[in-house]
Amino acid sequence: MTKAIVVFSGGQDSTTCLFWALQQFDKVITVAFDYGQKHKAELECAASIANDLNVEHHVLDLMLINQLSANALTRDDIDINAGTNDSLPSTFVEGRNMLFLTFAAIFAKTHDIKNIITGVCQTDFSGYPDCRDIFIKSLNVTLNLAMDYEFVVHTPLMWIDKQQAWQLADELGKLDYIRNNTLTCYNGIKGDGCGQCPACVLRANGLNKYLEFR
Amino acid sequence: MTKAIVVFSGGQDSTTCLFWALQQFDKVITVAFDYGQKHKAELECAASIANDLNVEHHVLDLMLINQLSANALTRDDIDINAGTNDSLPSTFVEGRNMLFLTFAAIFAKTHDIKNIITGVCQTDFSGYPDCRDIFIKSLNVTLNLAMDYEFVVHTPLMWIDKQQAWQLADELGKLDYIRNNTLTCYNGIKGDGCGQCPACVLRANGLNKYLEFR
Repeated sequence: MTKAIVVFSGGQDSTTCLFWALQQFDKVITVAFDYGQKHKAELECAASIANDLNVEHHVLDLMLINQLSANALTRDDIDINAGTNDSLPSTFVEGRNMLFLTFAAIFAKTHDIKNIITGVCQTDFSGYPDCRDIFIKSLNVTLNLAMDYEFVVHTPLMWIDKQQAWQLADELGKLDYIRNNTLTCYNGIKGDGCGQCPACVLRANGLNKYLEFR
Repeated sequence: MTKAIVVFSGGQDSTTCLFWALQQFDKVITVAFDYGQKHKAELECAASIANDLNVEHHVLDLMLINQLSANALTRDDIDINAGTNDSLPSTFVEGRNMLFLTFAAIFAKTHDIKNIITGVCQTDFSGYPDCRDIFIKSLNVTLNLAMDYEFVVHTPLMWIDKQQAWQLADELGKLDYIRNNTLTCYNGIKGDGCGQCPACVLRANGLNKYLEFR
């Protein structure tokens, strides 16, 4: 029996990856990370999709990465502790994908799982070095050495753009489900979202281009 | 000005690494991890040594790694959260060194530091794959790709045994300090420790061999 874990946020990309994985592997589970996202809706959306698809879903608490953000580090006391309330800085933490994937891999091995699926994408990596293919390949080797295990990291979206991601969703027979049930919007609105924020604009552009030419 | 960060536990190995680093670099800071160690004495010892040496010392809270231990994972609820009290499982977590070093690297970059020093040692790696030289080298490449930065991971103890580690301490002029002020003992006793536990026996054997032949 082949088994896989999907790093899962409930967004368009990772939901497409989840459907892809369900087609490729006998058993698929999902893992999400709680690190004080602005919208709890994101975590709820992930849990709800996993529930729809009857997929075993896990949430790992990664609030501690906030202690690595620039905000946390400008405090001038010596001990740095993670906050635990709603006022956490949501500042971007470099190397975050590396932490997420390392936690996912450790979790995977304890579940006897070798296949790890992530929706990272070099095509629109926006300058984040830990979305690049070369990083993922190097990480795969490092994880295998760290745990003496044969992980295979899969990146079905690595080389495609938003339009092609919708095409993949359609080929998987899940375009409507993904369109209506995933959350990408910065304002925390499911499906087509607020329609105004950059994430909604990007998503709608890709979808419209795909629908126009299909 | 050259800068370095030492992954620092207050034990013999990382204290030797700290003295080594102080000789090699213009500015050295230390980072320790709080993950619910059995003995708080370990963290206190690290802070006290850093204070003795006038080294800027940071503590990162990594209690969350306990949610990855076998104990945590045998719970059959779906959400896995880290405990916060004294009853945390101290179960070994595979890939732990990879997490520690990745956190240290992210922290280092925010402090404009490229040199990372760790006391891992292949000579007595006891089967932990993430103490091997090949792992550290692969991790170094992966970190550099993840953050587009030129980290250099230094491992002054990689190829030496306990006897040679005492020799290095002596060459650094710090044998007595390290003997009296570091904590290796499983029973949380500083210096020569309880004398009975495996860590004390290993440490004493190395020291006695070194003192006999010096």
